[in-house]
Amino acid sequence: MTQILQSFIGGRWLGAQGAQALRSAINGRPVASTHAEEIDFGEALAHARTVGLANLLAMDFQQRAQRLRALSKYLAEHKEELYAISAHTGATRADSWIDIEGGAGTLAAYAGIGGNELPSGNLVHEGPAMPLGKKGGFAGTHILVPRRGVAVHINAFNFPVWGLLEKWAPSFLAGMPCIGKPATSTSYLTEALVRLMHRSGLLPEGSLQLVIGSTGDLLDRLDGMDVVTFTGSADTAAKLRVHPNVVRQSIPFNAEADSLNCAILAPDVSPDDEEFDLFVKEVAREMTVKSGQKCTAIRRAIVPRQHVDAVAEKLRARLAKTVVGDPAREDVRMGALASHAQQADVAERVRLLMQGAELVYGERDGFAPQGEGVAEGAFFSPTLLLARDPLGNDAVHDIEAFGPVSTLMAYDGLDEALALAARGRGSLVGTLVTKDPATAARAIPIAAAHHGRLLVLDREAAAESTGHGSPLPFLKHGGPGRAGGGEELGGLRAVKHYLQRAALQGSPSMIAAVTGEYMRGAKLNESELHPFRKHFEDLAIGDSLLTHRRTVGEADIVAFGGISGDYFYMHFDEVAAKESPFGKRIAHGYFVLSAAAGLFVSPAPGPVLANYGLDTLRFVKPVGIGDTIRARLTCKRKIDRNKKDANGVGQGVVAWDVEVTNQDGDLVASYDILTLVAKKA
Amino acid sequence: MTQILQSFIGGRWLGAQGAQALRSAINGRPVASTHAEEIDFGEALAHARTVGLANLLAMDFQQRAQRLRALSKYLAEHKEELYAISAHTGATRADSWIDIEGGAGTLAAYAGIGGNELPSGNLVHEGPAMPLGKKGGFAGTHILVPRRGVAVHINAFNFPVWGLLEKWAPSFLAGMPCIGKPATSTSYLTEALVRLMHRSGLLPEGSLQLVIGSTGDLLDRLDGMDVVTFTGSADTAAKLRVHPNVVRQSIPFNAEADSLNCAILAPDVSPDDEEFDLFVKEVAREMTVKSGQKCTAIRRAIVPRQHVDAVAEKLRARLAKTVVGDPAREDVRMGALASHAQQADVAERVRLLMQGAELVYGERDGFAPQGEGVAEGAFFSPTLLLARDPLGNDAVHDIEAFGPVSTLMAYDGLDEALALAARGRGSLVGTLVTKDPATAARAIPIAAAHHGRLLVLDREAAAESTGHGSPLPFLKHGGPGRAGGGEELGGLRAVKHYLQRAALQGSPSMIAAVTGEYMRGAKLNESELHPFRKHFEDLAIGDSLLTHRRTVGEADIVAFGGISGDYFYMHFDEVAAKESPFGKRIAHGYFVLSAAAGLFVSPAPGPVLANYGLDTLRFVKPVGIGDTIRARLTCKRKIDRNKKDANGVGQGVVAWDVEVTNQDGDLVASYDILTLVAKKA
Repeated sequence: MTQILQSFIGGRWLGAQGAQALRSAINGRPVASTHAEEIDFGEALAHARTVGLANLLAMDFQQRAQRLRALSKYLAEHKEELYAISAHTGATRADSWIDIEGGAGTLAAYAGIGGNELPSGNLVHEGPAMPLGKKGGFAGTHILVPRRGVAVHINAFNFPVWGLLEKWAPSFLAGMPCIGKPATSTSYLTEALVRLMHRSGLLPEGSLQLVIGSTGDLLDRLDGMDVVTFTGSADTAAKLRVHPNVVRQSIPFNAEADSLNCAILAPDVSPDDEEFDLFVKEVAREMTVKSGQKCTAIRRAIVPRQHVDAVAEKLRARLAKTVVGDPAREDVRMGALASHAQQADVAERVRLLMQGAELVYGERDGFAPQGEGVAEGAFFSPTLLLARDPLGNDAVHDIEAFGPVSTLMAYDGLDEALALAARGRGSLVGTLVTKDPATAARAIPIAAAHHGRLLVLDREAAAESTGHGSPLPFLKHGGPGRAGGGEELGGLRAVKHYLQRAALQGSPSMIAAVTGEYMRGAKLNESELHPFRKHFEDLAIGDSLLTHRRTVGEADIVAFGGISGDYFYMHFDEVAAKESPFGKRIAHGYFVLSAAAGLFVSPAPGPVLANYGLDTLRFVKPVGIGDTIRARLTCKRKIDRNKKDANGVGQGVVAWDVEVTNQDGDLVASYDILTLVAKKA
Repeated sequence: MTQILQSFIGGRWLGAQGAQALRSAINGRPVASTHAEEIDFGEALAHARTVGLANLLAMDFQQRAQRLRALSKYLAEHKEELYAISAHTGATRADSWIDIEGGAGTLAAYAGIGGNELPSGNLVHEGPAMPLGKKGGFAGTHILVPRRGVAVHINAFNFPVWGLLEKWAPSFLAGMPCIGKPATSTSYLTEALVRLMHRSGLLPEGSLQLVIGSTGDLLDRLDGMDVVTFTGSADTAAKLRVHPNVVRQSIPFNAEADSLNCAILAPDVSPDDEEFDLFVKEVAREMTVKSGQKCTAIRRAIVPRQHVDAVAEKLRARLAKTVVGDPAREDVRMGALASHAQQADVAERVRLLMQGAELVYGERDGFAPQGEGVAEGAFFSPTLLLARDPLGNDAVHDIEAFGPVSTLMAYDGLDEALALAARGRGSLVGTLVTKDPATAARAIPIAAAHHGRLLVLDREAAAESTGHGSPLPFLKHGGPGRAGGGEELGGLRAVKHYLQRAALQGSPSMIAAVTGEYMRGAKLNESELHPFRKHFEDLAIGDSLLTHRRTVGEADIVAFGGISGDYFYMHFDEVAAKESPFGKRIAHGYFVLSAAAGLFVSPAPGPVLANYGLDTLRFVKPVGIGDTIRARLTCKRKIDRNKKDANGVGQGVVAWDVEVTNQDGDLVASYDILTLVAKKA
């Protein structure tokens, strides 16, 4: 009896009766079965909207980021449990690494993004706030808040672990409870993942539910605060996108679909160049990793006509050396397709493609993978085709064989290569192999209109290149047109897809109260106590100090030139300064900055531990000899990242708004300074 | 004979035979008619994709921004031609001001956004680029490029001028040729606008085409590089969103639909407060401006139960004083609905709403507007309803009467008010009238999940408030759920909706070549000539100077303390500094900054006119007594805004990357400096 997979709904594992059997891609034997019990999606959504949402919003961005980091660590520690199951999907250990460690790594990456780029609290201020009137009583800005809805992630069969985690991580960070629905054929691996996550004790209740089998009436029950994401075929994406309830409620629908991604060997590369071999290696790798079952795989290899036979020959040699078979064997470099259905589908598409292309490499009938008992496995030979007239061939730009299959295409001139790339009508990723920066500068902006990601590969990049096919947490994943038009990953932007953006208007005081960030014109708190003497907990947004004044004399300029070594004519050459637009000698900008620090510094040891940076400094007006300056220092923003300094003292980040004005009250310099401020406890 | 409106397609005005007659909203007399000739949308798209695109991409962001500014000025100069025609739509002069001058103002605003926030050239680098490996040979970033497709803007009847311009401005800036399709009923005003724009000679050929009448097979002919925007009813939005070709090609579809926007009078406001009257005034204004035909109008006025009768009474008094009739009369404050169809539709919806709400104000049968010959006009009395049990009433949260109609709703407690607001299931805008920042801080993050824009109104904001109903160029317009889920305006973000974003990976040199921005690790050009001696035209990205060195002594710290007045213990107190995490006295950060300037400054007059700012300064490592520092200064980014200084010298903006390192080669400070650099000619 095989294992019956269970859904995780409403805090309980559901399913005791088997339904559809799922088979190993390696030997065809049953691995597990789906469950027969129907899921009550009303219950699932109610659980997410009440328990899940409350638990998530009881934490803030920083705490959820920490939770992601802990989960990443936990998964890394227990990864072998997942590797053991992953082998049934047809994956080699290297393939599983992408899925399993790639998944755990993505959690860690989003932990870092959350920790470093998000505030504490549950509101992102997407500023700066801007005045909307001349008197300063009215202003506007943007905020991003948790949507207070549910994220439904519908995933493809090829990455049962990474596929869920790369979407779950940003939505969790954003404070959305999620319902994950993996593709059924490999859902046994996703079920194991969710069990692990659940067992870790790190998952807030209701924050992640799992659907094994069909989504039933789930989409009918969603509303406009929810989000649906989909990874898979363009056909299914199109079907889901027009779901009546999704349309009626304008539910954000983010699709990432397979596409006919290309790699271009640029005209500047000759067979003697290192880049020539880099191209061949990249194409071969993309064909065989995950048995070519990646939505990012290179389907079209676009090569200068004069080199197409040389490239074909080198690729043929490489593919012939690739051992295909049971991933348990050490010599095996490529495993099986994920299912027999895929095997049949790929075979049919290769047949269609071959109507307009030559077969360069590929064992057809009688292909025998290496290993014992693999005759019933879903194996497929690496298959390389060649289209000598790709401009006159629609099929090679349209039919995607989702397996170890690629088509070489000959071109004449870079413009033709770019036109061929565009024939994919929107791709997730494209690679340009070139050694010439000018070629990259010309080609990439044109190719970028059709691609979600572009890799420029040369010998300098090769050693550290993460490869054509690998989406990265910090870079956008998703392409226009055929690729679904969606955006995933891409750092902080991915988190923002799961937040709701609203413009905010009001008085500066109201904007400061809502955003937790001081803006000029808002109410100030001026107390006897210097704000630099307050601990992190005691500081309030708007705590402010207006300093004493200081008259800037020629002696200051002279002394500052001496200590800095900066003898720029605007400070020291009366003749040239007079002819300049300023019409006179002026003080060094950095003197103004340094003197302002001298005005507001509080010299004795105190809670302000360090000034570690400064942002958006603008010298608004020159300071001339005889001008008298003063500074206003105001607590602008506080972020608690729950960190401690080297001495074990808890600390937070405080940004201060600084305005330096002259005797007429005119602003002469404006900037933010960044400090670390100790906590009391 | 009335005027036959013409479409502007393929560079020609098309239409000689009349078709559907369009009638004046004021007196019912024919104003114009649509044309009978069919439009060849294949021709329109071919014209846009060839002539239009080539002309737009022959200009760069800066030049298109300048063109917008010139067009804005031209429209402002010729606005009276538009006012004359606008009267037929039922608009008062104040209503037309929003449409006409609001439209021209939006062009000017986007001219500013383009000029200030976009680079020269046609590629936006959305950096910073980040290393993707430990050795620095591989990096990633994002770029945004023109989509090389066509923007189709389908607009509503209520803002024939602004409605087109607010979408056309960002798409033009992004380099997209556009096809505009105004709602037929008021298309005579949009036609006049496009004629004016055409007459100005400022419109690049093919950059704007106009469709009078039906869009025919236009949507069937689009592809994934195109964009469709829609403003209008949620029903039509839903219909367009599922257009098979739009779905199949993942064509971005941005909808902005009417919604049941609310205003909440917060519990803290009492009838004696100024805010009480502000609330009443805002609701009355939103009911009557444009005769309530704004997708942003307040449809639901949510009021504490104890004040609901007082608010009703004050609103009744205000509405009773609003003179409705022919806008040509000086005393008239509210005009007509835009058409007789609207008049019938609003009447029917009011009838439905009245099944669950009391009528507070509104003349029903026999309503007589002021003016002569207006009996056949499309007038409608301001109509105020009251729902005492709005929680038990679905209709008031669902049925939108797109006219001068609003419903008062009673609530108990702020949570209930927020729950009522959420019953709109997604709105463009909501207003909270409160005098308490804590109430705003609590309510706004919750309300923001359901709203595209939120206005907090108090006495401080009132004098300069632009009002509940006014979208602004710099703030997001568009809301979730029922409001369509789209985003328009919002400053630079609106332009990005019309660009394609791609992740870019490669060696730092390749990334620098493509983005036109230096990143650390990219190839440097070190020449004999100091980069500060080069004019703007001669400077190349990567031009770099490695300075001589300077050893920092105790005397520097002492002297710098003296000149700045900064005697912070970390610099001067041996005892306290030893106990700090740094363990020793260190130099002032601003000394390091100033000394670095002293190292790389070129003192004699030259092309570098001014250092006007500094960004993202980080003090990475402390500089102790005895450390020896040097700086590397590298040309990072150039922007040509086609500006001149006060002396008439052409200049551009140059940002420089600065790295200050110590004797071990460790980075101690990192920042960008911003300079103005003169051109040769």
